[in-house]
Amino acid sequence: MSTRYQLHTTWASLERMATRSKPYNFSAGPAILPPVVFERAADAIRDLRSPPHLRDAPRTGLSVLEISHRSPSFGSIVHRAETLCHTVLGVPTTHQVLFLQGGASLQFAMVPLNLGQPDHASCYIDTGIWSKKAIVEAKLQGEVHVVATSTPSGYDRIPPFPAARTYANSSYLHLTTNNTIYGTEYSDIPTVDGDVPLVVDCSSHIGSRPLNLDNVALGYAGAQKNLGPSGVTLVFVRKDLIDRCAHDRVPHILRYATHAKQPSLYNTPNTFGIMVLMFVLEWIEQQGGLTGMAASNGAKATRLYEYLDSSQLFSAYAQPESRSQMNVVWNLDGMASQERTTATARFIQAAENEGFVGLKGHRSLGGCRASMYNAFPAEGVDALVAFMAEYERTA
Amino acid sequence: MSTRYQLHTTWASLERMATRSKPYNFSAGPAILPPVVFERAADAIRDLRSPPHLRDAPRTGLSVLEISHRSPSFGSIVHRAETLCHTVLGVPTTHQVLFLQGGASLQFAMVPLNLGQPDHASCYIDTGIWSKKAIVEAKLQGEVHVVATSTPSGYDRIPPFPAARTYANSSYLHLTTNNTIYGTEYSDIPTVDGDVPLVVDCSSHIGSRPLNLDNVALGYAGAQKNLGPSGVTLVFVRKDLIDRCAHDRVPHILRYATHAKQPSLYNTPNTFGIMVLMFVLEWIEQQGGLTGMAASNGAKATRLYEYLDSSQLFSAYAQPESRSQMNVVWNLDGMASQERTTATARFIQAAENEGFVGLKGHRSLGGCRASMYNAFPAEGVDALVAFMAEYERTA
Repeated sequence: MSTRYQLHTTWASLERMATRSKPYNFSAGPAILPPVVFERAADAIRDLRSPPHLRDAPRTGLSVLEISHRSPSFGSIVHRAETLCHTVLGVPTTHQVLFLQGGASLQFAMVPLNLGQPDHASCYIDTGIWSKKAIVEAKLQGEVHVVATSTPSGYDRIPPFPAARTYANSSYLHLTTNNTIYGTEYSDIPTVDGDVPLVVDCSSHIGSRPLNLDNVALGYAGAQKNLGPSGVTLVFVRKDLIDRCAHDRVPHILRYATHAKQPSLYNTPNTFGIMVLMFVLEWIEQQGGLTGMAASNGAKATRLYEYLDSSQLFSAYAQPESRSQMNVVWNLDGMASQERTTATARFIQAAENEGFVGLKGHRSLGGCRASMYNAFPAEGVDALVAFMAEYERTA
Repeated sequence: MSTRYQLHTTWASLERMATRSKPYNFSAGPAILPPVVFERAADAIRDLRSPPHLRDAPRTGLSVLEISHRSPSFGSIVHRAETLCHTVLGVPTTHQVLFLQGGASLQFAMVPLNLGQPDHASCYIDTGIWSKKAIVEAKLQGEVHVVATSTPSGYDRIPPFPAARTYANSSYLHLTTNNTIYGTEYSDIPTVDGDVPLVVDCSSHIGSRPLNLDNVALGYAGAQKNLGPSGVTLVFVRKDLIDRCAHDRVPHILRYATHAKQPSLYNTPNTFGIMVLMFVLEWIEQQGGLTGMAASNGAKATRLYEYLDSSQLFSAYAQPESRSQMNVVWNLDGMASQERTTATARFIQAAENEGFVGLKGHRSLGGCRASMYNAFPAEGVDALVAFMAEYERTA
């Protein structure tokens, strides 16, 4: 099965694609990264420069894949990556940055094992499958209160932020800030009343827009959306919380305190992944930082939502006030269930034939999804809208 | 600090190095991989072929870093990597292969959380720091018996295998089969009497020689020695043990059963790392498999040990019957402690100036260490021996 772009001369709006050798990749993650990052990563695999972020730095003669995680070359990578999390992503200096393994899924377990306090419940806001997975893991370790949910409407919106009394005295309050499956997003981090620590899974939109991370006690993100390849997890934790641990049988590798002692070097980290993350953060900085990202992401999302809202064939899944700039989810309109499944599959195949890949919705929801992370080009959205409008016209 | 090779015309034996643009990398891990693997990894970052193990397969137009872990392209990678673990590494088909994250250090915790049984102790053989770290984690979860140790002699040998009565009725018996820090190795997997599961941390020598893995109930290995880059852990577990779990509060992501249900795809794995591991296993197969590896590794190790045993300046750390083919550890002879530290640092710097990097011993032991994994070239060992002999002659 080839997913390469096929030249299609009848649509003027798609002409630009004729020069592309690359499909438009709407994958939800692992996801598209900037071309310059691919180039630099490939170059560092052949012969690492040290320091690697300087294009004219001397070559080491070694691949980044073969250098020790305790070498000066890797030390400079991890230190610079940490610094860029503060300066580019806006992680406050009151927080320790850690690059761990195991993805957000391991954080679902680590959060209750560290921040859970005896005789205190932990509170969760339920915005869909990823929240629910976090809740399942928290329930293994103690009492959980779900203090807000949008399950009655099929997670097509973010629920109103709960009143302070609902989460008072809890160990922490947990929130998933962007929901890839349904295409819903908190446009900023809410403010928590009182001193209950706010924990956020911001995997799928950190780096895409300015977020007020001062409100966050502990944040985590699998890197494979806007930050880098899979296999690296960004964690940032307020320093006064690092030494919290639910009980004395928690394995050392699952304690934030263990990793904070020698940041990200308690054991051998994903050295390559951390380097790529560093390259990505440099690219974001060069593009105008999070303000620049927000502007381009906002324009891309608006373009697609405006078309969907005007379409007679397609309709966006998320309610307008909750819509994600990262993941746009839509369905085909006005059909019975079986007919819709067939028509959706036909549309997705037609799009793939034209070089638009990764448009299949999450298996739990069906439908279509376009993930348009930072590195996704605006012209790819224009091309998709043109394709969809033509598809609608001729369908 | 440049570690590039400096031309040194006075030593005929080193002339070959003059043509090298690459240092000889003796790093203990992450470690040297075959040059062809670096090439293929860099190529797949630019534009992945699908199926990626076929050199003439069509290009996808996508980087391996941006494809979904649920895409057909990645599915073919993980399936082929699994198959090669059976056919090349000799993992029995009675065992499930898993590619996890978190390194051996996470396995130190997962083993007792899965295989530990209430009211049964777990047994460990103590061959040095890595064993001791595993023991610390097991003690957090239950009673541990250390049934053999070589600590009285500073871990310069592997201890006699314990009698069956010492580990009878235990949950499992745990063994570290190659000890990078001291340069000791079990040349094959011992046979356990009775039906106690044998658990092995074989991180630093799996893939380097044939090992009788039929004797192993559960094996694990951080990939960053002979198998690939850091950030991937190979685990293989006998299928009848997969569903064991110490108690019902173990997080799902720490249960082997969770990962076995949809092998290596419970959550987003280190997709790039698994692809590189696949390329490495293909290379081992092309080099004659584990028999071929054992022959070349044996010859390299013999070359260096023979020189060390004949030297008046250097002496090998490990006792002859316990010596590792992977990691050769030595000290400078006949000096007081402070003088030795200074002389060792001087030797390591002189070696580095000549393009031999990564020879510093582990910080817990001091001295020197040459890790000579599969991809380390025989001529690099010849060159090192020639350099050391000349150093000894002129020191």
